[in-house]
Amino acid sequence: MVKLVRVAIIGQGYVASIFAVGLERIKLGELGYYGVPLANELPIKVEDIQIVASYDVDKSKIGLPLSEIVKRYWNGHIPESLQEVYVRKGVHLRSLRNLPIEASGLEEEMTLKEAVEHLVNEWKESKVEVILNVPTTEAFTPFGKLEELEKAINENNKDRLTATQVYAYAAAQYAKEVGGAAFVNAIPTLIANDPAFVELAKESNLVIFGDDGATGATPLTADILGHLAQRNRHVLDIAQFNIGGNTDFLALTDKERNKSKEYTKSSVVEDILGYDAPHYIKPTGYLEPLGDKKFIAMHIEYVSFNGAHDELIITGRINDSPALAGLLVDLARLGKIAVEKKAFGTVYEVNAFYMKNPGPRDARNVPRIIAYEKLRQWVGLPPRYL
Amino acid sequence: MVKLVRVAIIGQGYVASIFAVGLERIKLGELGYYGVPLANELPIKVEDIQIVASYDVDKSKIGLPLSEIVKRYWNGHIPESLQEVYVRKGVHLRSLRNLPIEASGLEEEMTLKEAVEHLVNEWKESKVEVILNVPTTEAFTPFGKLEELEKAINENNKDRLTATQVYAYAAAQYAKEVGGAAFVNAIPTLIANDPAFVELAKESNLVIFGDDGATGATPLTADILGHLAQRNRHVLDIAQFNIGGNTDFLALTDKERNKSKEYTKSSVVEDILGYDAPHYIKPTGYLEPLGDKKFIAMHIEYVSFNGAHDELIITGRINDSPALAGLLVDLARLGKIAVEKKAFGTVYEVNAFYMKNPGPRDARNVPRIIAYEKLRQWVGLPPRYL
Amino acid sequence: MVKLVRVAIIGQGYVASIFAVGLERIKLGELGYYGVPLANELPIKVEDIQIVASYDVDKSKIGLPLSEIVKRYWNGHIPESLQEVYVRKGVHLRSLRNLPIEASGLEEEMTLKEAVEHLVNEWKESKVEVILNVPTTEAFTPFGKLEELEKAINENNKDRLTATQVYAYAAAQYAKEVGGAAFVNAIPTLIANDPAFVELAKESNLVIFGDDGATGATPLTADILGHLAQRNRHVLDIAQFNIGGNTDFLALTDKERNKSKEYTKSSVVEDILGYDAPHYIKPTGYLEPLGDKKFIAMHIEYVSFNGAHDELIITGRINDSPALAGLLVDLARLGKIAVEKKAFGTVYEVNAFYMKNPGPRDARNVPRIIAYEKLRQWVGLPPRYL
Amino acid sequence: MVKLVRVAIIGQGYVASIFAVGLERIKLGELGYYGVPLANELPIKVEDIQIVASYDVDKSKIGLPLSEIVKRYWNGHIPESLQEVYVRKGVHLRSLRNLPIEASGLEEEMTLKEAVEHLVNEWKESKVEVILNVPTTEAFTPFGKLEELEKAINENNKDRLTATQVYAYAAAQYAKEVGGAAFVNAIPTLIANDPAFVELAKESNLVIFGDDGATGATPLTADILGHLAQRNRHVLDIAQFNIGGNTDFLALTDKERNKSKEYTKSSVVEDILGYDAPHYIKPTGYLEPLGDKKFIAMHIEYVSFNGAHDELIITGRINDSPALAGLLVDLARLGKIAVEKKAFGTVYEVNAFYMKNPGPRDARNVPRIIAYEKLRQWVGLPPRYL
Repeated sequence: MVKLVRVAIIGQGYVASIFAVGLERIKLGELGYYGVPLANELPIKVEDIQIVASYDVDKSKIGLPLSEIVKRYWNGHIPESLQEVYVRKGVHLRSLRNLPIEASGLEEEMTLKEAVEHLVNEWKESKVEVILNVPTTEAFTPFGKLEELEKAINENNKDRLTATQVYAYAAAQYAKEVGGAAFVNAIPTLIANDPAFVELAKESNLVIFGDDGATGATPLTADILGHLAQRNRHVLDIAQFNIGGNTDFLALTDKERNKSKEYTKSSVVEDILGYDAPHYIKPTGYLEPLGDKKFIAMHIEYVSFNGAHDELIITGRINDSPALAGLLVDLARLGKIAVEKKAFGTVYEVNAFYMKNPGPRDARNVPRIIAYEKLRQWVGLPPRYL
Repeated sequence: MVKLVRVAIIGQGYVASIFAVGLERIKLGELGYYGVPLANELPIKVEDIQIVASYDVDKSKIGLPLSEIVKRYWNGHIPESLQEVYVRKGVHLRSLRNLPIEASGLEEEMTLKEAVEHLVNEWKESKVEVILNVPTTEAFTPFGKLEELEKAINENNKDRLTATQVYAYAAAQYAKEVGGAAFVNAIPTLIANDPAFVELAKESNLVIFGDDGATGATPLTADILGHLAQRNRHVLDIAQFNIGGNTDFLALTDKERNKSKEYTKSSVVEDILGYDAPHYIKPTGYLEPLGDKKFIAMHIEYVSFNGAHDELIITGRINDSPALAGLLVDLARLGKIAVEKKAFGTVYEVNAFYMKNPGPRDARNVPRIIAYEKLRQWVGLPPRYL
Repeated sequence: MVKLVRVAIIGQGYVASIFAVGLERIKLGELGYYGVPLANELPIKVEDIQIVASYDVDKSKIGLPLSEIVKRYWNGHIPESLQEVYVRKGVHLRSLRNLPIEASGLEEEMTLKEAVEHLVNEWKESKVEVILNVPTTEAFTPFGKLEELEKAINENNKDRLTATQVYAYAAAQYAKEVGGAAFVNAIPTLIANDPAFVELAKESNLVIFGDDGATGATPLTADILGHLAQRNRHVLDIAQFNIGGNTDFLALTDKERNKSKEYTKSSVVEDILGYDAPHYIKPTGYLEPLGDKKFIAMHIEYVSFNGAHDELIITGRINDSPALAGLLVDLARLGKIAVEKKAFGTVYEVNAFYMKNPGPRDARNVPRIIAYEKLRQWVGLPPRYL
Repeated sequence: MVKLVRVAIIGQGYVASIFAVGLERIKLGELGYYGVPLANELPIKVEDIQIVASYDVDKSKIGLPLSEIVKRYWNGHIPESLQEVYVRKGVHLRSLRNLPIEASGLEEEMTLKEAVEHLVNEWKESKVEVILNVPTTEAFTPFGKLEELEKAINENNKDRLTATQVYAYAAAQYAKEVGGAAFVNAIPTLIANDPAFVELAKESNLVIFGDDGATGATPLTADILGHLAQRNRHVLDIAQFNIGGNTDFLALTDKERNKSKEYTKSSVVEDILGYDAPHYIKPTGYLEPLGDKKFIAMHIEYVSFNGAHDELIITGRINDSPALAGLLVDLARLGKIAVEKKAFGTVYEVNAFYMKNPGPRDARNVPRIIAYEKLRQWVGLPPRYL
């Protein structure tokens, strides 16, 4: 029996477009499962993911079919199935601030409370099961207390809330009404790490995965630091740079947004090593011709036996969007599985492998190689190396 | 109650000298446990390791106290305790062939059978518990069948046997007579991977750890490949170079020896990835001024989601001898623990973390981060990340 | 008035195919002059180069039009003009030994002397002006004395001569008969560095450029070493690796051929630094999936003021064939210019910039940035930076 | 006949201390001339440089002998001769702003005009010939017009002037009075590039060298870009990071100062390539444990023949202070030589090799390998490679 997963995407940018095109190419047999961690091992198959709704706030995208949007990011063959889904208007709340994009949001036509209802109704119509949140990095403040969050919504406090926080709130209302849904937060805004949202999720039959999809340099750093820690090599310092040319790097030239990213990335060092080795880890710059293929550089210096000093340098060219898109293929399916398991609130076993800043708050980073095995255990797959 | 481990070293070169000086500096409080994977977590403490015998076949070393030898590799303060152990003559069997070193071995004065007896008697006198084998890489042929090994010893077949094979054989005779001992093979010669030796060890109350201490680039490669495999990134090719200026790199310019090293290193790729990605992994050259601090360079190309091609480059300067010496500090203690556990034969749980080519034959490589947790389990320590 | 250059290519492999396709694409306006050092500054324009003959000894290529061959190396649009030139049979003399290619050569049907006449006649018919020699790297022995070379030809000594030596000899016969021609040796076989050939060229109105086209890591090393030398930084050691997946890297796994390459590359160190810093510079290996885009890695350690030790690491992915093909676009035109200048023999000013091992014998390597300015001076162009 | 150069140092920090200790060690025969570009080729010998005065504004340094200061940066043997020179109080004008250092300056006791006179008198007493300016990077505004500069001094405008501008002004007053002197500006503040100062220097018999000593990544970038430009490879993008742990990197975390540095570094791209390739070149961060040995990482992507895309990555660990200190050994001597040549104003031939931002304004960067040969010509040395 085929078991579909009906997915809504928030933020129809680079990642969401590569996700959409890659998924359809897999269905057409043009591609294997490379870049999808659990490949086709799950009871829900990759081919059973269906995009049923998409949201954006870029005026030039709203109203167009996905096939038109995807062209801007991918110059290969565009599967025909992408002509069927149209981009709808979402909320922005300054999320495109300082970017060369003209924004248009529901909040211009209605209160946030009404916007939430509007979204819930659309999701009901489309029978959405999993909401994948991949807009541009936002500057945000976590809520901590559920009543604060509810107050902000009720008071239509557009300065306090970010788009992601509104979407996550809407997801909870939706889950409550339909009996279960999942919200995957792939950007740095704290959702799975914000007790306000986790509490709300538990009450509302919502599964939250988050925060900030673990692609690129950070999970690799986690595993390399784990490697050093297990040999009791004492890390003296870590420098990590990365520079790219996609909109997310452009957005990070905005100081406020950059700060939230930095927070996420740095927590990994102390979690893995057990001490806070001096480090400089942050997105470094924007260089347009690099496009989506970012350049990363990392330098690690450590002490080995008898006081010897060693050095490692890692550099790389890594396609940013496909890395996250591949994770979303798993997360969409795991979202539905978690709902079936009634694992409402947030699921550390999933977050620990897929997220840079795995929720709930105070949960720690572990080397990803370990997290992977725990994930398999949670989902009922046989161990791979353990 | 203090629990000593009485250790004999074979091959008083760079690694053994750093091992000796580092150990004594730790006892003097000059150093912490950096580079010793299990630090002081084991029931046997680092400070309780005692070097009671040392063997070499370099004429310029035999008869001198360790303090004199260590000076050649370490220009810091030499702990006084190193004046008490003198280097004895071992067997070489061509192991210094083509190196600028004048060799002198027991085999020139007696048959191999007699040499074995001679060693066993010396070990008895010194109450040796663990034998650490760290001579220069040899060109060798494994035995496979125990009777072949015994035949070679009995027939004094100096062309068939290498020094390491003779020492391992002697260790088995010794273990049989005293009721238990451990032989740690830190070089590529197959011992823990040679069924002849494993069978002999089981019969003789000998514990074998081996083969080839996992330092430098190979275990790091294992963990990075594990990292990629867990994301289902498809590895297209792997190139790994390393070049150094110590005697071991000089020895590897000898084609025969290099071949044994290459065999060891390559097995890791298929074991971890599940397919044999095209690779070029071998010690590349000798460059004297690099000294013991080798230069490594690695290039890995892989396919991510939607057919994207990514690239990683890892380079480093790594002190070769301290990396292995730090592992020996654990292996000496684990050797005694394994004897107490009567784990005769070879112990995969130990080998999988510490060895490039973990025995027994057909045992596979796993990412080291996983192997580490399994090791902790075997030895009775709480998990670190699991 | 348009001034054509009529070119014959020897070795219709990767480089020659990229040369042919790139040239025709430039003529069609599909490409600019990127990768052609002197762009369109010379009195002879890029567009005026005409391929009039092509030679190979691969059975699967002989008799086919260039358009068919080029397809094997280039998957873009193939310009129609490439349908007009057909690959003719040349001489091989073991140059494909150990490669997975079936060879067929003129020497199987006639003596070498007859083969030389055969080539001269074909070149006369096609009115060839410049011969570009780009076959696979050969194992060779230089002649030194002209009479030795002539003796080998006359005695049909197929074991003594390589294909390149025969072609260069034929070029001299041809130049003598028609009053002038140029032979560009882009592979390591010593021609411009062999006094026998230089003497013959002078007598025969032949211009020789050579040896071994300076692409990739070596000229970059030259400039970086020049940079260090000018700051009086004392180089302690240099390690340079490179690995690729094209036929030339496959050919270099043949030990004999590799040796000739190593000779060329190493001369650069002492020439530039003024002392022979310890170095390891040689093609390292073959890894098929890398294709024509080789991976290079270089490590340089040096002493700065007050005894400080610094380190540089350079890595890169470099397309091998286009790098050389771009140089050939200049060399073809410079060949004709040199003939017009009656610069018979060999021309150091050209070789010093374009060649890894600039002839004549005993000519030294200088940083390429300097060589470039001297080249401009020789050819009558204004200085760029000087 | 020995020809001394009497030198005053401004800013007795890391660079000045390594300069002092290295110089004295050379005099003692402990060191060769490594890191000094012109070694001992000049008519004035390295051994003939004499430090006769030193200035700082760090309260903890003023009044101490150099031998005490140098200890903070160098843990080897301190030559006794460094006990003879004492650090005097200079002017700071906010140059230590935001640094964890307590400043004390002449401006607190007198007007700037009086401070200038005070300095001139001290220099007369010490018979200073060359002033080496190496304080911490400042935030500054160039003057452009001489009358503006004079007005600021006369009005005691402490907000408008930086310490370096005051020192350079004082140097001009001093040169005028004694008939000639040299001021070497090794930091980014525009002096040789500020027409106000160049005009003043011409009128006052002052030689200015500047601006910003060319150490580390930037001159290497210049030569590598020159290398690419000469092959007509089209540079698509350049990313350059560097991170260190000395006071200068700490100072650059101050946004204002960082800006002046960025300006300097970027000019190199267009000057060398002839077009402004997209680039990101700036000091990236501060990481204390790296100390004076900064980590640099550079990524360059370019187009070669037939549209092929290549990539270079350069990383390195480079001792920052010795690199500049070695240049100062030349600049001190060249300062005196320029005074003798009456080359008042600024000297492009010197600046082009030694400075990141060679004055006068509008002078362009050339590859350093070329600049070096021009320098030799200017100073009367035979060419090295040309």
